[in-house]
Amino acid sequence: MKVSLISHTPDPLSIFAQSARITRSKGEDWKSDLYYFKLLYQSGHHSVFEHAMFSFLIEDISRACSHQLVRFRIGTSFTQRSQRYTEESDFSYTCPPSIAKNADALKSYSALVDQARASYEDLVSKGIPKEDARFVLPNATHTSLVMSMNYRELIHACSLRLCTKSQWEIQELFWRVRKIMEKVDPVLVSILYPRCFHDRYCKEAHPCRLEKYFLDKYTSWRASL
Amino acid sequence: MKVSLISHTPDPLSIFAQSARITRSKGEDWKSDLYYFKLLYQSGHHSVFEHAMFSFLIEDISRACSHQLVRFRIGTSFTQRSQRYTEESDFSYTCPPSIAKNADALKSYSALVDQARASYEDLVSKGIPKEDARFVLPNATHTSLVMSMNYRELIHACSLRLCTKSQWEIQELFWRVRKIMEKVDPVLVSILYPRCFHDRYCKEAHPCRLEKYFLDKYTSWRASL
Amino acid sequence: MKVSLISHTPDPLSIFAQSARITRSKGEDWKSDLYYFKLLYQSGHHSVFEHAMFSFLIEDISRACSHQLVRFRIGTSFTQRSQRYTEESDFSYTCPPSIAKNADALKSYSALVDQARASYEDLVSKGIPKEDARFVLPNATHTSLVMSMNYRELIHACSLRLCTKSQWEIQELFWRVRKIMEKVDPVLVSILYPRCFHDRYCKEAHPCRLEKYFLDKYTSWRASL
Amino acid sequence: MKVSLISHTPDPLSIFAQSARITRSKGEDWKSDLYYFKLLYQSGHHSVFEHAMFSFLIEDISRACSHQLVRFRIGTSFTQRSQRYTEESDFSYTCPPSIAKNADALKSYSALVDQARASYEDLVSKGIPKEDARFVLPNATHTSLVMSMNYRELIHACSLRLCTKSQWEIQELFWRVRKIMEKVDPVLVSILYPRCFHDRYCKEAHPCRLEKYFLDKYTSWRASL
Repeated sequence: MKVSLISHTPDPLSIFAQSARITRSKGEDWKSDLYYFKLLYQSGHHSVFEHAMFSFLIEDISRACSHQLVRFRIGTSFTQRSQRYTEESDFSYTCPPSIAKNADALKSYSALVDQARASYEDLVSKGIPKEDARFVLPNATHTSLVMSMNYRELIHACSLRLCTKSQWEIQELFWRVRKIMEKVDPVLVSILYPRCFHDRYCKEAHPCRLEKYFLDKYTSWRASL
Repeated sequence: MKVSLISHTPDPLSIFAQSARITRSKGEDWKSDLYYFKLLYQSGHHSVFEHAMFSFLIEDISRACSHQLVRFRIGTSFTQRSQRYTEESDFSYTCPPSIAKNADALKSYSALVDQARASYEDLVSKGIPKEDARFVLPNATHTSLVMSMNYRELIHACSLRLCTKSQWEIQELFWRVRKIMEKVDPVLVSILYPRCFHDRYCKEAHPCRLEKYFLDKYTSWRASL
Repeated sequence: MKVSLISHTPDPLSIFAQSARITRSKGEDWKSDLYYFKLLYQSGHHSVFEHAMFSFLIEDISRACSHQLVRFRIGTSFTQRSQRYTEESDFSYTCPPSIAKNADALKSYSALVDQARASYEDLVSKGIPKEDARFVLPNATHTSLVMSMNYRELIHACSLRLCTKSQWEIQELFWRVRKIMEKVDPVLVSILYPRCFHDRYCKEAHPCRLEKYFLDKYTSWRASL
Repeated sequence: MKVSLISHTPDPLSIFAQSARITRSKGEDWKSDLYYFKLLYQSGHHSVFEHAMFSFLIEDISRACSHQLVRFRIGTSFTQRSQRYTEESDFSYTCPPSIAKNADALKSYSALVDQARASYEDLVSKGIPKEDARFVLPNATHTSLVMSMNYRELIHACSLRLCTKSQWEIQELFWRVRKIMEKVDPVLVSILYPRCFHDRYCKEAHPCRLEKYFLDKYTSWRASL
């Protein structure tokens, strides 16, 4: 898996503050960009966060992962590599950690992937169109896509996918997204946390061991206001 | 593949007409529901068509097909069977016609599916979680889902997916949806056609042989106004 | 203000349960529709709630109110009476309670509305198109619209607009919507409350006196699981 | 009315081309950014155009105009000045050209606006909250907002609002948006035209005199491929 930021709205904090100011009277005393960011987040006026967009190039995630990823519908756009038109015989693939660390399982897994590749090549050589031959490709097969999300949806997607209850591959993807956001802006990344941070309690039936950690994160974030 | 209509807004034409009338002056002379339907379609005021929703149960389509299907984002909702939590060892699967009619290819195809099933069962028996074992399942594996679409998006989805250039499995899916709509209402189905019907010319670089057929459909629809 | 339900998905609880079941293995032991409703709400799987839609006819709200109302974008459709094409000289209007109970203010208010009406009629009589004459109509002027919302968005809209901090006219509108939902289904209405019910604390800087009331509502709802 | 571009995705053509390339095989021979732009537009793969966003500051449009503007729901975000909290007694306003050039009408119009202002000030002085006093403000009253649109929706919004059948104030707004886009990128602006350009015929019952002009625009655009 590789994730890189290929484009984004320049200076998001400044456009958020400019938008926040427009809702108010002209004579008002303006505060800092950071002040408005915290106010908007805290008061739930998150629609302003839609004015900044981030575009990521996501390479070599499994089709299992991408099928789940493209379910984000709001404030999000995807352009994905098509298996209908591309030649896939040299596909790379994801190996789940649970399999990688189990020698017997790994042998079985690698064998199946090799068979799928051989079957794909065989079908194509027999004149089957690529869009039909791909039916033998496993969920593990890599795909790549460009994903654009506005910052409001990025908060939402991170709240769901950084949670330890989320599927491991998409969880890893969003931690990589978060890592990138760290470099973009320390303020923007400061609220990209699992949903317990935002909800201030865990909604899961069986909370994970990190619950207290993320609740403390919120407390210190709040204290910094 | 099985498609059935499990729920829909009762009497869509009536709610479209009621909505159309609200945009006008109170004293106006009301016309028939059919009159407003044709007026709204013809004049491009399709937002009114969002007031009716149709929910379909779609069973046994391939994950290749569902991955494309769930890309519809507007006026559309999906609930899909999860491969993370369900036991998939008895999965059924789609066989593309191009493979079904080629004995050699079919043999290769069936063998691979059997191997994938054996590999899945083997991984599960070795203690690999189902959500990781599914990485060996092929694109051909069946899934099921509930899809709700409002009528405006149904027009749009049909315009794209009834086109002969569309992938064959999703094309078949939408022709089945259309077949069901025939029984629901002869008026609603009367404009569910490929996009050449709506555009009045084919946008494809290489038009198919049905272009004239669908353009004639529009002409007779229009004549019926 | 008049609000009526003109159409809705029949039997929403049943379609929610049917959709929930499809995500699970075939052999599973099915529970009641109510069981799935509570499970889906509690676990945050609210996308299933998009499979039911409700269409309301909303008559005689101010344009101030409708301007705010149409900002709902997700899972929501509006058809509104146009001031461009309708004759508005007999418009009715909203009088805010703060003005209605202040005799002096009311006099000033009524006078201005009368002047606006006279000005509108005068402009039309001078040959000004209705779409331009309407520029003199006040925010108080009544409009009507059809609003369709899926149940997921209805939960969201009620969480924002039933809150005592919300503008009074839109607050009244959603309490009327809620009143109607009471008759539709006692289960569906059981979670249509201000956001403190869902969040389990008040996000406002200055909580209102009803905070405890709604938190208790959640506690008893939860106890009924 | 004032329109300015306050932020946008840097280098949209480059991100469109990068996204287009990802859908294809790795070994393919890459073409120019312009080549992909034209291909994507021509073949109807407009979802790629969602990867660029433009944020405009729109000042001093009437509330009549803004009420229509905020109906754009897809790929669009708005932050608008609130009349609930701001002091509006010094409001400026839009005067429709049909009124401005009719001395009698203008006198009546100006008088009403003056009365509305006096009434607003009177109500506020009598202790009526600003959010209620604003009920006397006319549709003509100016508002300001920040509007972010992705490029796909910008094509759509321009196709509807640059049309001569569109309401004059919102038509002017989008011609100003287009003027700004001219400076941003000559390629991006080259397809921002009324819908007859895209449809290649006029859908209106009574086509305007510019139909041929815009159809010719398409023909020369197409010839430039």
